[in-house]
Amino acid sequence: MAASSATAFMINGFDPTTADRLTQDEQNLIARRRKLLGPSYKLFYEHPVHVVRAEGVWLYDPEGNAFLDVYNNVPSVGHCHPRVVDAIAKQSKVLNTHTRYLHEDILKYSEDLLATYPDEISNVMYTCTGSEAVDLALRIARYYTGGTGIIVTANAYHGLTTAVAEISPSMGPNVPIGQHVYVVEAPDDYRGNGEDIGEVFAQRVEDAIKKMTRHGIKFAAFIADGIFSTDGILTDPPGFLKKTADVVQAAGGLYIADEVQPGFGRTGTHWWGFQRHGIVPDLVVMGKPMGNGMPIAGVAAKPEVLESFGNDIRYFNTFGANTVSIAAAQAVLDVIKDEDLMANSVKIGDYMVDGMKKLQQKYEHVGDVRGAGLFLAMEFVTDRTSKKPDAKLSLNVVNGLREKRILISAASPSGNVLKIRPPLPFTAEHADVFLSGLDEVLAANS
Amino acid sequence: MAASSATAFMINGFDPTTADRLTQDEQNLIARRRKLLGPSYKLFYEHPVHVVRAEGVWLYDPEGNAFLDVYNNVPSVGHCHPRVVDAIAKQSKVLNTHTRYLHEDILKYSEDLLATYPDEISNVMYTCTGSEAVDLALRIARYYTGGTGIIVTANAYHGLTTAVAEISPSMGPNVPIGQHVYVVEAPDDYRGNGEDIGEVFAQRVEDAIKKMTRHGIKFAAFIADGIFSTDGILTDPPGFLKKTADVVQAAGGLYIADEVQPGFGRTGTHWWGFQRHGIVPDLVVMGKPMGNGMPIAGVAAKPEVLESFGNDIRYFNTFGANTVSIAAAQAVLDVIKDEDLMANSVKIGDYMVDGMKKLQQKYEHVGDVRGAGLFLAMEFVTDRTSKKPDAKLSLNVVNGLREKRILISAASPSGNVLKIRPPLPFTAEHADVFLSGLDEVLAANS
Repeated sequence: MAASSATAFMINGFDPTTADRLTQDEQNLIARRRKLLGPSYKLFYEHPVHVVRAEGVWLYDPEGNAFLDVYNNVPSVGHCHPRVVDAIAKQSKVLNTHTRYLHEDILKYSEDLLATYPDEISNVMYTCTGSEAVDLALRIARYYTGGTGIIVTANAYHGLTTAVAEISPSMGPNVPIGQHVYVVEAPDDYRGNGEDIGEVFAQRVEDAIKKMTRHGIKFAAFIADGIFSTDGILTDPPGFLKKTADVVQAAGGLYIADEVQPGFGRTGTHWWGFQRHGIVPDLVVMGKPMGNGMPIAGVAAKPEVLESFGNDIRYFNTFGANTVSIAAAQAVLDVIKDEDLMANSVKIGDYMVDGMKKLQQKYEHVGDVRGAGLFLAMEFVTDRTSKKPDAKLSLNVVNGLREKRILISAASPSGNVLKIRPPLPFTAEHADVFLSGLDEVLAANS
Repeated sequence: MAASSATAFMINGFDPTTADRLTQDEQNLIARRRKLLGPSYKLFYEHPVHVVRAEGVWLYDPEGNAFLDVYNNVPSVGHCHPRVVDAIAKQSKVLNTHTRYLHEDILKYSEDLLATYPDEISNVMYTCTGSEAVDLALRIARYYTGGTGIIVTANAYHGLTTAVAEISPSMGPNVPIGQHVYVVEAPDDYRGNGEDIGEVFAQRVEDAIKKMTRHGIKFAAFIADGIFSTDGILTDPPGFLKKTADVVQAAGGLYIADEVQPGFGRTGTHWWGFQRHGIVPDLVVMGKPMGNGMPIAGVAAKPEVLESFGNDIRYFNTFGANTVSIAAAQAVLDVIKDEDLMANSVKIGDYMVDGMKKLQQKYEHVGDVRGAGLFLAMEFVTDRTSKKPDAKLSLNVVNGLREKRILISAASPSGNVLKIRPPLPFTAEHADVFLSGLDEVLAANS
């Protein structure tokens, strides 16, 4: 099995080693998946979860057992939020069409969405998925700059199209990194030995620009998920990306903020992850939580960056921003505001960090606890001096929590970092369930 | 304005030449679109249409005026079909999640979907859009064959990702055709001078394979929309692609059938356009009508073609085949069968061809009438001897019909072919409205 964190907790079809704990029903479903969907379709956990309904932060299996969702960021305002469900049902009955006819709702939504952005970013284009949005951002950046060179971090994941997979080194050796793609080490403050990680990381990016220029490749863009989700959730200190943005923009490249992970208020203090760093990107990619599960994503942009692309190149996304997707997205935006979910993200995020730091004092393999709002990480190491990643413990914790019906996953190149990313209406009571489950599983693995 | 058919009937933001017939409301919407969405967002027609609701084959503007939809193939079973709407509303309330948990519905749907395919094609993977599906098919084909060379027709359009745009020559000069992409002249039987177009086209493809091989490029795949939608809707004679498929597969390449346009029963006689040609592709791309507007698309495949890709490369599409999309897709498939929409497509398609052929006798600029099921074409020429495309007449007819509240568009490199593609529950009465409107507009332009 590949070392990639994203495959570490999946089985590929039917795995005989887990057969003893699979029900007949689960075995049948797994066999049909393998037969119909082929080998690409992986499942979470050594013992996969069969879900039939969900509500708020809970998923339910056919027997009615409740699983606490501490992982899914797509149903960001809560599974099956009634306002989102109603918006979808209502609009589906009335009209579901594309953007080549005039319609009010896309404009009202765009106004509300762009109001969450700095003034410089005043245009938005819509796609259906984050991958399509990253792909579009790359097309725009390359057309605008006339360059092709892209800089990414060492275990970045930005999506699944041909062009986006090749800027996603976490895909592993079977998906070659593009020849115009330069990879820099991720900004790991935990292993930074007290250096200014902002300075260090900016220097890495500057070196990469020089290197590609020397190879005759014109620099087009730097792209990062501002929370470095697949690189291990590298959140600290806020502001450390400012110097990098300066370096990128001074070199004539575009700064593309991939907000698929941190966006839509997850970090609590800001709508967008880049705001934690005090920067203004040229292009911003949005995705997952945008429609609470409805496939809608997009690119927000400085208008001058879009102008030539939009004038010269036809771009029409058939389902992108259709009237039903927009209705869902509007409901999500409204709920984030009306239910004060960003304040909740700060409050419960801090509460969870406190709880996790107590566990850190208790368990020596917990090397670090960090995060921003409700995007949190617990990093396991073999010992605190070498800080060597302990991926086995991480795997055991993820699968151990699943047995307690608490769902999370892991990240980082080796998979040694717990990826804790619940729906935003998470409460202190939910956090307590998670923290005590984590305590028990860590105790069992000590 | 570019000669591309797909831009020919759009305005870019506010166009002063049409201001006199735009209402204040329309002018405001257009100005807000331009300000918020940038220059990429084009509108259909010289006088854009503002729609607020839809039902069956009708779209309605804010004043309650009904527009007959003879163009939109996404709402294939009819706008806001109650069974699709109910399926979406019901599933949205219960669960909307991804494919990394076990769920019954994706398996039931996959079984039903694959039952419409030849036995050899027994796997399916899901995406959100046809572009993502084509991009995935290219990735699979290139990984499976170890080649990179792709063959497409001269005015093909397959989608909007970086990799797919470069196999879409219809995008025009600002989107370079990829260096590993070879372009062949489309199989235009109307201009074929009585030659066997199947023979001629297969030879073109064979020559392209030879040429790329000579350039050191290994052949990966031939891809075509089996109805050659953007090349001018080249439907005849059925079976003409068989020789091409033989040539492609004998050369070790994969035949990718892009069924985004002809698929899901539109041609009437078959579920899939490739079946009209008696071939079994290696990969099949599905899209637009699959969820009647819900963003769902996919790739059906011979399992041996998927095997190595699926085992070696992680592919997870967050929203692809989520439980709500699957519910919509299941309803669409059921409705096509239960309402006998394929039989209707044959019946009404034939009826419309008869009516259009009568118009051809009456108007000398109508060079050809052709089609398959409810995907029909009327080709305009300056005269029947030279067969020179008459794009101006086509443009006038499209805009003239819009003034009569009948919505169609045009295709072909110059845009001289009417693209007639109504939702499948089109009746003879609807056809009569279209035919008499067309008669009047042709008379006015004669």
